[in-house]
Formats: sequence, structure tokens, C-alpha cells
Amino acid sequence: MLTLSSDFGSPYPAAMRGVLLSDDPGAKLVDVAHDLPRQDVRAAAFWTRFVLPEFPPAVHLLVVDPGVGTDRAALVVRAGDHALVAPDNGVAIPAARVLAAADDAAVEVFAYEYDTPASNTFHGRDVFAPAAAAVHRVGVSAAETLDRVVPTDDYVDLRLPTATVEDGSARGEALVVDDFGNVITNVPGSFLAGVDDGTRVRVNGESAPVGTSFASVESGERLVTVGSHGNVECDVNRGRGDEAFGLSVGDEVRIEQIR
Amino acid sequence: MLTLSSDFGSPYPAAMRGVLLSDDPGAKLVDVAHDLPRQDVRAAAFWTRFVLPEFPPAVHLLVVDPGVGTDRAALVVRAGDHALVAPDNGVAIPAARVLAAADDAAVEVFAYEYDTPASNTFHGRDVFAPAAAAVHRVGVSAAETLDRVVPTDDYVDLRLPTATVEDGSARGEALVVDDFGNVITNVPGSFLAGVDDGTRVRVNGESAPVGTSFASVESGERLVTVGSHGNVECDVNRGRGDEAFGLSVGDEVRIEQIR
Amino acid sequence: MLTLSSDFGSPYPAAMRGVLLSDDPGAKLVDVAHDLPRQDVRAAAFWTRFVLPEFPPAVHLLVVDPGVGTDRAALVVRAGDHALVAPDNGVAIPAARVLAAADDAAVEVFAYEYDTPASNTFHGRDVFAPAAAAVHRVGVSAAETLDRVVPTDDYVDLRLPTATVEDGSARGEALVVDDFGNVITNVPGSFLAGVDDGTRVRVNGESAPVGTSFASVESGERLVTVGSHGNVECDVNRGRGDEAFGLSVGDEVRIEQIR
Repeated sequence: MLTLSSDFGSPYPAAMRGVLLSDDPGAKLVDVAHDLPRQDVRAAAFWTRFVLPEFPPAVHLLVVDPGVGTDRAALVVRAGDHALVAPDNGVAIPAARVLAAADDAAVEVFAYEYDTPASNTFHGRDVFAPAAAAVHRVGVSAAETLDRVVPTDDYVDLRLPTATVEDGSARGEALVVDDFGNVITNVPGSFLAGVDDGTRVRVNGESAPVGTSFASVESGERLVTVGSHGNVECDVNRGRGDEAFGLSVGDEVRIEQIR
Repeated sequence: MLTLSSDFGSPYPAAMRGVLLSDDPGAKLVDVAHDLPRQDVRAAAFWTRFVLPEFPPAVHLLVVDPGVGTDRAALVVRAGDHALVAPDNGVAIPAARVLAAADDAAVEVFAYEYDTPASNTFHGRDVFAPAAAAVHRVGVSAAETLDRVVPTDDYVDLRLPTATVEDGSARGEALVVDDFGNVITNVPGSFLAGVDDGTRVRVNGESAPVGTSFASVESGERLVTVGSHGNVECDVNRGRGDEAFGLSVGDEVRIEQIR
Repeated sequence: MLTLSSDFGSPYPAAMRGVLLSDDPGAKLVDVAHDLPRQDVRAAAFWTRFVLPEFPPAVHLLVVDPGVGTDRAALVVRAGDHALVAPDNGVAIPAARVLAAADDAAVEVFAYEYDTPASNTFHGRDVFAPAAAAVHRVGVSAAETLDRVVPTDDYVDLRLPTATVEDGSARGEALVVDDFGNVITNVPGSFLAGVDDGTRVRVNGESAPVGTSFASVESGERLVTVGSHGNVECDVNRGRGDEAFGLSVGDEVRIEQIR
């Protein structure tokens, strides 16, 4: 199984599908998303860390690559029974940590050495899809038997920023905004553990109710809730939380419980 | 075979794909759409009633769920050789009626009893995908052998509104607007049976020609035609019918033949 | 294997998936794109000529069909081990030429004779998907054994316009604008062969640097580069080239090297 994630929009991902299927017409391809926020390595790391652990063992092709055409390396990152194939910009590392931990394994990073690609602008087709096809062909556990695959310690690490939580107060940031306009912060859901539905907190100084689900508040009303990734979200029931809370990706988010 | 329909945008549907494939890595997944109009149960019912009958026997996962996080039930709806897995808000019933009728079967509704899910906001991943995987695993015809599956008569029914047609005049409503801006009404296509291409009718009082196809009128011109679902549509050739006719979902649409 | 390309948006393509899978539930379906520029035959021809050669032998369903509902023919176009099934408006021919050439074969065109379809507006479902299913069923090499398939020389040809290149000056046009806002011209990449990174050229009279990759210029800066299709593009690093260069599809693009 091969999954595909990118910020390529359409129809570029189809070229990657073609490359993978030319290598193995029987390969099972599963799209994760191709509308990841453009050239936003951190958002791609967040979403793939969220989604990929739902999958059975697979090779995950993940191309969000602001450095395309430079000499940045291509990586094969093994995480237990999974492998990620991605540019060396940190994008694959947060998901790899979670996948490896689930398999009680360590993250193993390999450089994938590639020849001068056919283009300087579409390494998804010319570098990463062929690399993913090669790993898929030999199998994740035998990835290092490929000639082009060399173990390395020299790679770009990425850790999503963590929030500071102390005694009823959390200081974090808006990590991503989803399609619904929900603002996903890095404040852990545990911050709201035991807080009753309807209890009010302050978000950057403004009062808003905690809701255990969207239906806790009326349509059009704001709520602070714990999302399906376990993070605190600032949302609006049937509306856009980013607009109602005035929050954009990267903004500081302070949440205070009111005594 | 499993089909997936939702209003989740991206990348949330990928988490459902992962859950389904973790249960059965060989499962065949087919996306219907994940950009169904947000939290619009009626639109989702319309589109799935339109599309699902084209499919061979399958388990259809259908999650448009404004009540997520409340105690609304999860349903398994068997319709002949097909099953739909959906929230108990009526969304699955119109398609189920058509699928059952095609197989000369009755619609059978089962409650799917679920434990407290991991999240209050993403039952697509935490409730409905596992339920669909379970039905897929045992097979549609054996759905009731699952421990969690219990026959029920207590469910939300949904019937799409019907138009009133009499003697050259139809009074219906705009059911949905598609990506092209075509306004799909609930006036049955039979209302225009035998009406010649170019004949003018009145739509909410304004004259427009009947066209047997888009090409019946010039580019940019309005037409009233019968769409591929058998309903009367208010369209513009290479343009947006919703704007040209001033119609939104839910608006009344009166169509009168002119004698 | 069957690929699907259209300008149908969503959820109409799902009806085609259903038709194909009803014919053969085991068929492998691969989406190319369903958001091809609406009713733009030339853009669809460009993108499929770019993407389809990446695929292994397949039946390619390609429906961009401004003439839907008229009496334009349906075609099966054989190109070596590939076949394209498409309306007779030229859309399939540019890809067919490239696919045939790769297999050292000639393009063979067949009319697919269809009965009065169920709708006048959705021949993707009613004509072309059944035709693609039929070709897939018998196999590309036996396409002409189908009763409805008849060799023809009478079809709409389409050649994408070519640029005029002479001695340091190219006169072409903007063929398509991609999701990133990159303006893809018909000026061949060879026009910039040997031009160093950073060298300035004039685009419609205005100076802009040649870049070998996006990273050749700062974020927000314009560049002229060779895209992954081998054509010259007018782009902005992390921005929209169409806006920065003031170019739309069909506009003339003159590029001059500066001595």
C-alpha cells in the first residue's frame, strides 16, 4: 500500500500516480490529501501526524517541498512497519515519531541518492515517486538493500511547537486552520479535562464557553473544544472559528480558566 | 467494496480511509464525494440517491452529521444487496429506498450501538468508519449477526419534498445547486415531456426557453432542461443558472407552460 | 486499469465510477483530475498529454464535452497499448499522439456508436463510461471487435498551438494557468537551454530573471523557468505568476533574450 500526500493541487498528483503504477500496476494507492496548505511544512507535518497512524503498514509519499530544485536531500524515513518518502525539510519526522512509537520502534532515517532529475520543479514525479516505488517494491523492512539508500544522521528534524500549561492557564499557538475554519491549537486537550460543558474560559482575553461537542452551543456561536486530534480547538458551530476568534496560523493563543 | 461520502473536505476523509484499510488492507474504497454541502442533510440525501444506484453492491459510508457529539444513533440501513452506514438523521433513507426498490427488497434499518467514541467531533473516524468496516467484514446479508447491530423502527425518516404539478403548471423548489451553478429543482422531468426545444416557459414569472441540451441555447443564455437525475433544472449554457435565475437552495420555483 | 479525467467537479464523477465498477467490480480506477478547466478542450488536451504518458497501459476515460447533447460522435482512440474514450472534439488527440509514439504505434481512431442516451446533459455517465467499460472488458488490442466500434478517419483533430522561435526571440501564448498560478506557455524549454540562472529576459517587454528552479529567486519574486512538461513558464516563487505577469490563458507571450 502506498499513500500520497502533497500540496500539488490538481492535476499534478496524477503524474505521481502514473509513476507509481508504472512501477507496479497492481499497487494499491490511497490519497491522503493534495490540498495541504501550500509550502507549509509544519501544517503538512501536523496533518500527516494526525492521519497516517490510522493506516495499516504502508509506504507514505509525502511531498511538500519549498526547496524543490535546490540540493536538499530526499529521505526514506522508516518508522516500524511504515516508511515515509519525503524531502529533507522535517515534514516527515513528526508522523514518523508517532508511527515508530506505535510499533515500539525507533525512527530510522536514510538518504535516497538521486540522479539529476528530469525537472527542477516537479521532484514529486521525478525523485520522490520513483523513490517511493522502489521502497514499495523491496518492502519497508528491506529499504536499506536499495543501492541508493544510505543511513544518515544528518537530516532536518522538526518538532511542532508545544504549549506551556500551568495551573489553569495555557499559552500556545494556532497550528493550523482546517477547511471548516476550526482553529487547531497546540494546547493539549488535557488542559480542559474535567471542565464541564458550558464553563467559560478566556481566549486571548475574551470569554467563550467550553463545549464537549459542536452541539453544545447554538448555531453560529463560538466554542472551545477538544478536537479529534486531541488538541484544543477554537470553533464556531456551523461557522468559522478563525473569523470569530480573529486567529490565523502562527498566532499566539492564551487560554485561561476562570475561577 | 466500500464507498465514502461526506462533507469533511480535506484531509479528514483520509482518516476514515485509514480506519477502513486497517480493518481490511485489501478493501476496495471508492470515493463518492467529500465536498457535499456542509451539514446539509437534504443535499447529501439528494446526491447519494442520485449516485449510489450506479454502483454494484457495496457498503456505503455516508457521514453528513450536524448532530455529531450528541446522542443521535448510528444506523446500518440495508437496501437489498447494499448497506448504508450513516447517522440517524435521515440522510441515508432516500438512497436506501431507491437501492432497495432496484433489488425488489424492503429497506431494513438497524441501530449500530457504539461505545463512547474517542472524540466528540469526528464520529466519521470513531464510529461510522468502524461500523462500515464491520458490516463490510461480515457482508451485507449478514449485517445483523454483528453484536452491535439491532433492528429498529425508531429512526429519522427523510423524504425529499415533492413538487405539485397540474395542468401546465409546476410548483416546486430548488433542491440543490451543483458545482456548475445549475439549479436542480424537485419538478419531475415528465413535466416537460413533449415540450419542444425552444418553447418558452415562465420560471417564477420570467420567460426562459426549454432546451433539450445545453447546446440548445447560445453560450451565456438561460435554459430550462431535464437533468441527468430526471429533474427539471434552471441552467445557463457555460454559465451559472443560480445567478441568472436568482435562485438559492430552498427557494420556491414555479414553472408555467405558456399557451 | 481505467483512468478518469473530466471537468465535472463533484459529485458527478462518482456516477461514472459506479458505471465502470458495475461493469467490472474488480476494475482498477485511477483519477487523473475532475477539475480540469471547465469546457476548455485545449486545456484538457494539454494536461492529459502531460500526465497520461506517466501511466502504464490503460483505458483513459476523458470527458470535457462542451457539445454534450448534440450529435457529436463518441470516439475510442487507440494509441499503442493505451486507449482513450472521449467526445469527438479533439480533446484526446494530443495525448494519443504522445502515447502512440512511445509505443512506436500509430493513432487509430474509432467511432463508438451509441443509442439515445438516458440524458442529454451527462454523457459521461450515459455514453462515455459505458464505452470505456466495454473497451476495458475486451482489452485495448481487441477494441475493434466490439459491435459498436467502427474505424473512422472523420474526426476532429486538435493540435496545440506552437510557438515561433528564432534567434533569441520566442513568440507563443499562455496555454494554461495551473493551480499555483504558474503560466505555462507553448514556448519550448529548449529556448532557454544554456541560459544561466539569473540571466534576464524580456517577457512582453518587461525584464524578468531566468531561474533554474523556484529557489533561484526570493519569495514573492518573478521568474521565467522551464516547467516539468518541458515548456517555459512565467512564475512567482511562492506566489502567482498569472497576476505578476498580467497573463491569462490565450494571451500572447513574447520572450526575448537580452544581448
